[in-house]
Amino acid sequence: MIVVMKIGSPEVEIARVSQDLTTWGLTPEKIVGKHKVVIGLVGDTADLDPLQIQEISPWIEQVLRVEQPFKRASLEFRHGEPSEVVVPTPNGPVAFGQHHPLVVTAGPCSVENEQMIVETARRVKAAGAQFLRGGAYKPRTSPYAFQGHGESALQLLAAARQATGLGIITELMDAADLDVLGEYADVIQIGARNMQNFSLLKKVGAQPKPVLLKRGMAATIEDWLMAAEYILAAGNPNVILCERGIRTFDRQYARNTLDLAVVPVLRTLTHLPIMIDPSHGTGRAEYVPSMAMAAIAAGADSLMIEVHPNPAKALSDGPQSLTPERFDRLMQEMAVIGKAVGRWPQPVAALAS
Amino acid sequence: MIVVMKIGSPEVEIARVSQDLTTWGLTPEKIVGKHKVVIGLVGDTADLDPLQIQEISPWIEQVLRVEQPFKRASLEFRHGEPSEVVVPTPNGPVAFGQHHPLVVTAGPCSVENEQMIVETARRVKAAGAQFLRGGAYKPRTSPYAFQGHGESALQLLAAARQATGLGIITELMDAADLDVLGEYADVIQIGARNMQNFSLLKKVGAQPKPVLLKRGMAATIEDWLMAAEYILAAGNPNVILCERGIRTFDRQYARNTLDLAVVPVLRTLTHLPIMIDPSHGTGRAEYVPSMAMAAIAAGADSLMIEVHPNPAKALSDGPQSLTPERFDRLMQEMAVIGKAVGRWPQPVAALAS
Amino acid sequence: MIVVMKIGSPEVEIARVSQDLTTWGLTPEKIVGKHKVVIGLVGDTADLDPLQIQEISPWIEQVLRVEQPFKRASLEFRHGEPSEVVVPTPNGPVAFGQHHPLVVTAGPCSVENEQMIVETARRVKAAGAQFLRGGAYKPRTSPYAFQGHGESALQLLAAARQATGLGIITELMDAADLDVLGEYADVIQIGARNMQNFSLLKKVGAQPKPVLLKRGMAATIEDWLMAAEYILAAGNPNVILCERGIRTFDRQYARNTLDLAVVPVLRTLTHLPIMIDPSHGTGRAEYVPSMAMAAIAAGADSLMIEVHPNPAKALSDGPQSLTPERFDRLMQEMAVIGKAVGRWPQPVAALAS
Amino acid sequence: MIVVMKIGSPEVEIARVSQDLTTWGLTPEKIVGKHKVVIGLVGDTADLDPLQIQEISPWIEQVLRVEQPFKRASLEFRHGEPSEVVVPTPNGPVAFGQHHPLVVTAGPCSVENEQMIVETARRVKAAGAQFLRGGAYKPRTSPYAFQGHGESALQLLAAARQATGLGIITELMDAADLDVLGEYADVIQIGARNMQNFSLLKKVGAQPKPVLLKRGMAATIEDWLMAAEYILAAGNPNVILCERGIRTFDRQYARNTLDLAVVPVLRTLTHLPIMIDPSHGTGRAEYVPSMAMAAIAAGADSLMIEVHPNPAKALSDGPQSLTPERFDRLMQEMAVIGKAVGRWPQPVAALAS
Repeated sequence: MIVVMKIGSPEVEIARVSQDLTTWGLTPEKIVGKHKVVIGLVGDTADLDPLQIQEISPWIEQVLRVEQPFKRASLEFRHGEPSEVVVPTPNGPVAFGQHHPLVVTAGPCSVENEQMIVETARRVKAAGAQFLRGGAYKPRTSPYAFQGHGESALQLLAAARQATGLGIITELMDAADLDVLGEYADVIQIGARNMQNFSLLKKVGAQPKPVLLKRGMAATIEDWLMAAEYILAAGNPNVILCERGIRTFDRQYARNTLDLAVVPVLRTLTHLPIMIDPSHGTGRAEYVPSMAMAAIAAGADSLMIEVHPNPAKALSDGPQSLTPERFDRLMQEMAVIGKAVGRWPQPVAALAS
Repeated sequence: MIVVMKIGSPEVEIARVSQDLTTWGLTPEKIVGKHKVVIGLVGDTADLDPLQIQEISPWIEQVLRVEQPFKRASLEFRHGEPSEVVVPTPNGPVAFGQHHPLVVTAGPCSVENEQMIVETARRVKAAGAQFLRGGAYKPRTSPYAFQGHGESALQLLAAARQATGLGIITELMDAADLDVLGEYADVIQIGARNMQNFSLLKKVGAQPKPVLLKRGMAATIEDWLMAAEYILAAGNPNVILCERGIRTFDRQYARNTLDLAVVPVLRTLTHLPIMIDPSHGTGRAEYVPSMAMAAIAAGADSLMIEVHPNPAKALSDGPQSLTPERFDRLMQEMAVIGKAVGRWPQPVAALAS
Repeated sequence: MIVVMKIGSPEVEIARVSQDLTTWGLTPEKIVGKHKVVIGLVGDTADLDPLQIQEISPWIEQVLRVEQPFKRASLEFRHGEPSEVVVPTPNGPVAFGQHHPLVVTAGPCSVENEQMIVETARRVKAAGAQFLRGGAYKPRTSPYAFQGHGESALQLLAAARQATGLGIITELMDAADLDVLGEYADVIQIGARNMQNFSLLKKVGAQPKPVLLKRGMAATIEDWLMAAEYILAAGNPNVILCERGIRTFDRQYARNTLDLAVVPVLRTLTHLPIMIDPSHGTGRAEYVPSMAMAAIAAGADSLMIEVHPNPAKALSDGPQSLTPERFDRLMQEMAVIGKAVGRWPQPVAALAS
Repeated sequence: MIVVMKIGSPEVEIARVSQDLTTWGLTPEKIVGKHKVVIGLVGDTADLDPLQIQEISPWIEQVLRVEQPFKRASLEFRHGEPSEVVVPTPNGPVAFGQHHPLVVTAGPCSVENEQMIVETARRVKAAGAQFLRGGAYKPRTSPYAFQGHGESALQLLAAARQATGLGIITELMDAADLDVLGEYADVIQIGARNMQNFSLLKKVGAQPKPVLLKRGMAATIEDWLMAAEYILAAGNPNVILCERGIRTFDRQYARNTLDLAVVPVLRTLTHLPIMIDPSHGTGRAEYVPSMAMAAIAAGADSLMIEVHPNPAKALSDGPQSLTPERFDRLMQEMAVIGKAVGRWPQPVAALAS
């Protein structure tokens, strides 16, 4: 943090400000020029509010933040090296990260019954997905909407896991469900609406399963990394960031605005792996393939795509779900881009496993 | 919901669509014109997604929602009558609502120690506030920032309540704290970041204390009323809506954009009482008085204003806190507007208590 | 501007950066501390891009802007004194500014015919307005929508001016119309969509009539003041700023989000008078009165309100227009607030004139 | 447009509403069901405001728009066939459109001097670009910033055109410059800030050169297509749409949010060709390559990329400009994606021409 004093600030006032700043646990360094004096603050300034420091003296011209407020999530924390999140699944460990092939997660918005979830799992596995997504607990805008089948849906996910060997990603909404959900999930998802549910973040940070952290609808990139920081600071290093569209002024055609530029932006800020969810990111099945392809070309590490055997009859998010047939085709289209950028999984590896 | 069929739709297809819609639990009514056929849907359509219905047939031109998705929160639910939320406090019951005088809530962002909270309570009571606000559990962007003193802060709020007779409004972040917080709070606050924490909404809906529901940073008015609907549907009719600024493209001077037009908009949609928080709504103490005055003129039922004995040393949100002296003066300024619009409490009542 | 060098920057590199900066026409001042070196830039930095300076050397940690980019629009430019814009009208000069009573502008969105504009002018004058608004050239989203009657509408405004003595405010869309419009208008309006039409700004800055500058839908406060700066820099000191709602994620009920906090924010930044337009700001007649009252309480210097003798038949913006009867009533309601804050015109003055 | 009457509406009121609607030049069709009556409106409803129709009678429940407000820009206007914009250049005609290879436009933000513009043109041509971009008239936020060299810059663009055979794309800000700019430009650019400068749109619509229409910072997709409609309706069928980032709440790292989903969205709405500008879309050179690749994978027809021989010394937009070396490399990276999706120009064709 840099405190810029006004031209002509009295020496005694500069001394008083410096003195005051030491009571905040900081080490002020006076930097003196011919016309201007600037005070540099050494110490932990991540939590200081520049506006509050400005109130110390009317002779302060401006207080400027130089440092990033996140630490463990920062690229510097790993000396510029990307991290990898390796998830054990029945089919073997799957690694998310910049030095690994693209990981595809697919499945329905919510788990409806055993037949549909197992069938969907088989289909998406056959097409090349490594994880099955599916909601047991559903955050719905309306209290009258289907809220998910809860624990019984977790058991159906387990059946699909057993039938296919796919890893399971499913959303946690309530800390009270953490234990049971943790038994079934390979990756625990924190949804956009809970991105700043700090109590929940602390709790998933204190357990061992990897966490998929979706970006909040109005979360800045800094807010998002600070939410990741909550999980990392609580002891869990396995965090995957998932962009799923932000809320902007234009919601007529696409429900959200998929902010694909997070890929290059995050690469300069953090070591964490990046997933893109074009299904929530656009809200309509017909826009998904184009955005899935773009995400791969942009350099994403992973994709999450909604697939439902009968979107017209889905209990939630039908309009943004692909049919298994369309998903098959999309995987072939994606493979072309994935190979072009050198991020497509080798078929050889699949044979070997 | 209205299903508009394309001109020239075959009779058999219209019949098929109608048949299909009955399987969704709806009663389709065919409305026939010379060129167009429209299908009106009678039944509970609050949870239907127009896009999903559109997928039933390529002959469907458009599906249009006519009804509001909220029920208990709607003005119609009370036949156009505003509701009142009456909160018992040591100083007597205080009523929030359109037919009652303005209710002022004031206090610090977070409870720091006994002396500061009791002193602040005395000062804001003397100035005319009826509720003390103060955080025991604080949602902070950074995990390294002060997170609130927790249960011990609740005890300090109880001391301030006893010393002044003011009602207590304090935020619940974690359902695990509901029981203990419910013992101390007269009104339970759900913060902006938890507005769509549906698990938490259900839980405060299932207990008896009134709930102050802050609007989420990116919540539409409809989202907000649906969040209220969660609480109402769970059985708690005492909900107060609090606007605290939304997130927009301009965050350079004011941190949030205070959306004061929610006052006239909500009056046409809901019976629930409306509170305005100009402190979070602008993020800077110097903008608060002007917006507090505007809120009263706009017709708000209640105001929440941050007051701290020493804003420069506040552990959180100092820059947006007024000093007790400035708050005294603001209450006098507010009284002028409040009396002009006939919403200022009668001094007689104060003498009588 | 402040250039913060990284800890350990070689002396020779600091010298090179300083040298380089002089080639930008700046006078760099080296500010030396024990650990850190900061370079302060004296000179005209309003146009420099911090990111571009950062590219001078990898040893630059950050470049921070300290100064505001606007000058003539700044409060400092007038040493903290608000400016006033005095407009001659047939009824005498009318002053817009912080030390003057509230000025009310009213009238239809567009001038439709002589009878309607003269009748509306008489009605709004009787109710207490000092200016008539009315569009001759209309910016419409659709090329197929009514585009205004052009010059003939200007003549009708002149007739209404003659009949009532009201000043005329009307919008300029095309520099080619400036001469003719300047003959009829007492105040020239630049609409939201042209706020960054810099060619047009330069031209209205180079002519003598006062300019009403509406805020663009996505303009930050800084963008807006820079647009005013274009007019001021071209030589016209008479600029009034008009807030008319910004575009945000929630457009379901109110068309725009009226950002009333611009009143206290602008007071700390600029000397220019402030007008609020609650008609465009909300887009619906039923929300206008509440926001008009709020604007006065917030401290606005002027209001612009759409009034149409028959809103249901208006050629543009009918839904946000008040009837003359509703406007009469609103003026009485506004007078209550206006008097309470000491900004309502004295009736005595009206008699005297 | 569909007018839904309330249940129980009196026959006489329904007749009155129908009668009233005919005075708007519409043909109302009564659609009668057992409980509900709906009135379908045949005729030109593009300019009607649903809210205004609603005011005709309190028995109207809701008025719903069914039709899109744009016509010539709509996909239906060309029966689902994409249009192509063919631009003659010294190197031969270049076609923009869905059935043509990707067209790359590159060059500096503004034309600074002959040597830099000719050198840049040579470099981008060698790398594979077909058009040179460069501003002669620059829209700058600050009146004190470099405003472009004007007509003399147009002459330098002509020199670069002659030296390389590249087509020229340059921005028109003022209708007064249209004639001279039209002499030099192969494609006339309308910038984001002038997207709703309807006077300017009409004028470029009435001249023969193709128009590149950038999306406004707060323009919805519908606003944007309506702006294109102004040009098309004025008689010019050659319009290219260019996405350059929209303004959202997060502007800390990327200056704008590049809305790449416009590609699949526009494909369902319009026949017009689509260009993506990742330079303005992100505002930083280091984010450009990733977004350029994504744009191709998403299916864009064209790209506009800022290239400057010395970004650190650019008179405008340096931070978002690539060096010629980085652009060379990017073109090779882009070719990999472009070939993968079958949109990369054949080198053979280049030899043949």
